[in-house]
Amino acid sequence: MDAVQKANSGHPGMPMGMADAAYVLWTEFLKHNPKNPEWINRDRFILSAGHGSMLLYSLLHLTGYDLPLEELKNFRQWNSKTPGHPEYGITPGVETTTGPLGQGFANGVGMAIAETFLAKKFNNKDFTLIDHYVYAIVSDGDLMEGISQEAASLAGHLKLGKLVYLYDDNNITIDGSTDLSFTEDRLKRFEANGWHIQQIDGHDRNVIRDAIKAAKAITDKPSLISCKTKIGYGSPNKQGTEKSHGAPLGDEEIKLTKQSYKFPSLEPFFIPKEVTNHYRKALEEGAKQEQEWNYLFDSYQERDPEQIKSFNSFINESSIDWDEALSEFPADAKGMATRKASGEILKKLSSVIPNLFGGSADLSPSNNTQIDSHPYSPENRTGRYVHYGVREHAMISIMNGINLHKGLKPYGGTFLIFSDYCRPAIRLAALSKIPTIIVFTHDSVGLGEDGPTHQPVEQLASLRLIPNTYVLRPADANETAYCWKIAMNRTDGPSILALTRQNLPTLDRNEVASADGTELGAYILMDSLKSIPDAIIIGTGSEVAIALKARERLLEQDIDVRVVSMPCQEIFRRQSEEYKESVLPSHITARVSIEAGVTNGWQEWVGNQGRSIGIDHFGSSAPYQTLFEEFGITADRISEEVRESLGTIKAKY
Amino acid sequence: MDAVQKANSGHPGMPMGMADAAYVLWTEFLKHNPKNPEWINRDRFILSAGHGSMLLYSLLHLTGYDLPLEELKNFRQWNSKTPGHPEYGITPGVETTTGPLGQGFANGVGMAIAETFLAKKFNNKDFTLIDHYVYAIVSDGDLMEGISQEAASLAGHLKLGKLVYLYDDNNITIDGSTDLSFTEDRLKRFEANGWHIQQIDGHDRNVIRDAIKAAKAITDKPSLISCKTKIGYGSPNKQGTEKSHGAPLGDEEIKLTKQSYKFPSLEPFFIPKEVTNHYRKALEEGAKQEQEWNYLFDSYQERDPEQIKSFNSFINESSIDWDEALSEFPADAKGMATRKASGEILKKLSSVIPNLFGGSADLSPSNNTQIDSHPYSPENRTGRYVHYGVREHAMISIMNGINLHKGLKPYGGTFLIFSDYCRPAIRLAALSKIPTIIVFTHDSVGLGEDGPTHQPVEQLASLRLIPNTYVLRPADANETAYCWKIAMNRTDGPSILALTRQNLPTLDRNEVASADGTELGAYILMDSLKSIPDAIIIGTGSEVAIALKARERLLEQDIDVRVVSMPCQEIFRRQSEEYKESVLPSHITARVSIEAGVTNGWQEWVGNQGRSIGIDHFGSSAPYQTLFEEFGITADRISEEVRESLGTIKAKY
Repeated sequence: MDAVQKANSGHPGMPMGMADAAYVLWTEFLKHNPKNPEWINRDRFILSAGHGSMLLYSLLHLTGYDLPLEELKNFRQWNSKTPGHPEYGITPGVETTTGPLGQGFANGVGMAIAETFLAKKFNNKDFTLIDHYVYAIVSDGDLMEGISQEAASLAGHLKLGKLVYLYDDNNITIDGSTDLSFTEDRLKRFEANGWHIQQIDGHDRNVIRDAIKAAKAITDKPSLISCKTKIGYGSPNKQGTEKSHGAPLGDEEIKLTKQSYKFPSLEPFFIPKEVTNHYRKALEEGAKQEQEWNYLFDSYQERDPEQIKSFNSFINESSIDWDEALSEFPADAKGMATRKASGEILKKLSSVIPNLFGGSADLSPSNNTQIDSHPYSPENRTGRYVHYGVREHAMISIMNGINLHKGLKPYGGTFLIFSDYCRPAIRLAALSKIPTIIVFTHDSVGLGEDGPTHQPVEQLASLRLIPNTYVLRPADANETAYCWKIAMNRTDGPSILALTRQNLPTLDRNEVASADGTELGAYILMDSLKSIPDAIIIGTGSEVAIALKARERLLEQDIDVRVVSMPCQEIFRRQSEEYKESVLPSHITARVSIEAGVTNGWQEWVGNQGRSIGIDHFGSSAPYQTLFEEFGITADRISEEVRESLGTIKAKY
Repeated sequence: MDAVQKANSGHPGMPMGMADAAYVLWTEFLKHNPKNPEWINRDRFILSAGHGSMLLYSLLHLTGYDLPLEELKNFRQWNSKTPGHPEYGITPGVETTTGPLGQGFANGVGMAIAETFLAKKFNNKDFTLIDHYVYAIVSDGDLMEGISQEAASLAGHLKLGKLVYLYDDNNITIDGSTDLSFTEDRLKRFEANGWHIQQIDGHDRNVIRDAIKAAKAITDKPSLISCKTKIGYGSPNKQGTEKSHGAPLGDEEIKLTKQSYKFPSLEPFFIPKEVTNHYRKALEEGAKQEQEWNYLFDSYQERDPEQIKSFNSFINESSIDWDEALSEFPADAKGMATRKASGEILKKLSSVIPNLFGGSADLSPSNNTQIDSHPYSPENRTGRYVHYGVREHAMISIMNGINLHKGLKPYGGTFLIFSDYCRPAIRLAALSKIPTIIVFTHDSVGLGEDGPTHQPVEQLASLRLIPNTYVLRPADANETAYCWKIAMNRTDGPSILALTRQNLPTLDRNEVASADGTELGAYILMDSLKSIPDAIIIGTGSEVAIALKARERLLEQDIDVRVVSMPCQEIFRRQSEEYKESVLPSHITARVSIEAGVTNGWQEWVGNQGRSIGIDHFGSSAPYQTLFEEFGITADRISEEVRESLGTIKAKY
């Protein structure tokens, strides 16, 4: 109450309503060491209803995390460790960024998947190395969002018994009573999803304790405990109403609330000594638990150093010998689709990266993502492939959770068009610096007959707009290999691979530059014959081969151009000015870009004198060759634009 | 089979598996007139599993819609009326564009809402003007997507009894058996959502008939009929397997299938005369049904011409006297948030537009969208406001359905950040030319303390990338009024209003240009004192007032600039070259844009010599004034950029 009041902004209702449940969970169940929030075998706690951040910050402060009271007083202020919604990487003990509803719910499913995999892989009769729960507090809003149904259905299917979610069932949303829009039988729905369900009085701590015990006792089903609570519990005039949801209670109401609780002081932020002492037992208890675990770890290591070496390589990023891992694809005019090249690369990577953990949103044969024919399942916890079902949004969010847990290296596939279905989870990966890898195949109108509902047009440009996101669009099989290397090595944000459905020639790297230029984001693929090119053509992905063809035609007309392949704008943007100038010298203003998507954004690279060839409208259903022809994604069109561009520039000077 | 084979692309499995159910529905239940697909009281049929388009095209052809056999032979070809997935506006009788899973499911909920409203409003004891069902075929994929849970929960809550969905329960997805990822108890989930459920043999036509009858008899619950089917039914070697899902069966298998059905000919596209005759009864029956309805309509009109006039104004776009509808907001330095202005405008509009139909995804008090305190509900079918719940994705898709039905003019609100949650539905509105109106408030870091999870940064730019989409970002209350006018008058695509949380000054239109310039997309808000400005500042929304302040400061330094307000790039782009040149003369290259979002895309307007002020990174949790200051969204920064820009340009020449 005090922090929200001081910030004059925030959500007091949820923290007050769920204080009882959170108190029981954090003081009697949660296995954690506040002094080491990174301890791998800790229980995970997720506040999926992130707007109640003050509940989490209070618990972190009280149990002894590195979050002084000053930070709570600084709630929602510039540079504080207590932002409006919990942010991973900002506050010690915050396991994931939440606020956009449903995301934390799905993240937890990912963490639980990782737990079962590592437990099965590394536990044995003598040593239980991994054995922890994933707890969350979820809200009405979480359960209304579609992503939570996707994740809940999969969690039930996968029998993730260590998932225990406390549902703040308070009958209140921002618009008012849940009677306005949310009258489904939630518990029955979760039962249908294969969950163990309970409904309890969320203010009776004995009942809460019993319910969590019961939930933990069920090992083959995730658990949802509906805690019937009053939002803003304890506030004499605002409890049970939406008025306590998203605004400070007011000084007077805070006073009345403290009085009704017989709180010993009305001083803001006053914490009685005995309360601190009571919560700080977590420090001692947590240190002891981790110490015991460390002892177990050491004994295990003594007994089986190889297994522990393997465990360490799972938990920490292990270095890969990329020369070993990636063999070159031979030149081939007929070539192959980059999705197919990706599939072959993945097969190789899966043998050198034992914790590579794939999946697809029910497009495995199209995405070429499958690396394990014995997928992950309740019966096969060490399967290295997840059939996520037609659940793109949950897939990405679950992968974020797997990454946050640590231990597995997840990637997942779907069509590029369906990036629209999972954008919020991609954004959170970018914001939280999570290295989730996404394989988006069928990356342009090149998918052909399925038509405009399935043809991405604005998606490449639109994904590039998300800060801290790599959009990698390789031009052939060998660039695809380097894109995988970039994605696998990235540690501080998501990587997106945009791959073709259609075949592309595998370029002859004796004729064109080495594909290792991919690692610089853009490179001179094939230069002009003379030292200063007449013009520059910039292409990405499937359009690079078209650019090369245009180069040949233009040569016949004595126009001598450079072709630049630009698989990743974000990476190129980070290169030195010298390198960028060497690829795109500023005095060469006759530039043409080609990409089978919207042209918006390309002006950054071609400049005002330049021209961009693309598709600034929706696609159409037809064989892809027809579409490229009709939409002008052709070598002829490039030649024409280059010639016109040269003409305009010459005329001007 | 034949069409997919000829196209060498497509999905034969679903049409074959659901042929029995569709046959019963279309020949015994569906009320429609193939000669007038626009008849308002027709039953709506949605193929939510749009990949089975050939089922729908076959039915449309057979029952006598304007879809000749030639078009079926032209399946998935350039300019055909039979694209890969059904597209609204391309094929007569296609009620909505489907393919991206879950969308058709939610569209149907919108159509059913519209039906109940119009029925309640215009039916009386003598005349039943509106009385039709909404049928759909939905698939495993539809049910796995989160959006369908959102829509199903709301449909159950709203007791939409005329929704009858046939679920193609074939146990097969692209990856293989549904056992791989989809083992939840679907029927129980729908029961929990308040639906009437049945499970039947989807190949037994008598059982199908009884099930549809039973579904229709339940008037207070939507119905889901699980039709247990075999995908690719009838194909001796491929039925029941994923092999028949997404690829042609092959000539030999087609032959075997026809033989197993004892089909009278192996000739591709052969349709026995008696089959055509049998289906074409729909022509006679449909004409009769519409004729009877027309008779009813005429009698109603005779009895109560006022009601029919009102009905007609609901169904057809009625013209609005905008001078009447919009009163000017007086100049006010303190001003108001554009979301607040929008709320006031909506109150006025709701009185002159009786079919205006609002809603919000549980952010009514924040979006200022509520126009009716007695919301739409099972008890109040003529309520003009829907509490959509925390279900952004379903909300937009439902609004698309309401629009497609005709009769109501829907708009709905949420925060701009959550545009990411509903992007696929916005895209389909754009592709299908549906005039859905979306109110996105809290449109920048200006929302302050909620932090980066809630602060849109790339969303404005990213929504502008969707073809055929208006992104309207008004600078003050009066521009907001014009933005509403634009949105209300638009008929061929979605309009997005991006509105502020924070107060903005209501500009004194005696000092600056009239807000009617908004209708041109961009206009000179305040010109330089001399005839040719030194530089141009372009701003949108909340940053326009900052631009005006910068103009004043620059004048003190003898720099005389023009300020352009650009509420809608898409509209401005469509203006004449003359007008565009008059606002942004090409010889004035010193240009600075300012918008509190990513700068990508602004080069189109400021050119290579210009500069763009924006936020190319995620936001942060703090009071908004701090954020604008820290992120350099200030008048000082503009002045600086203008000065530097002028310096660079002068140095160059």
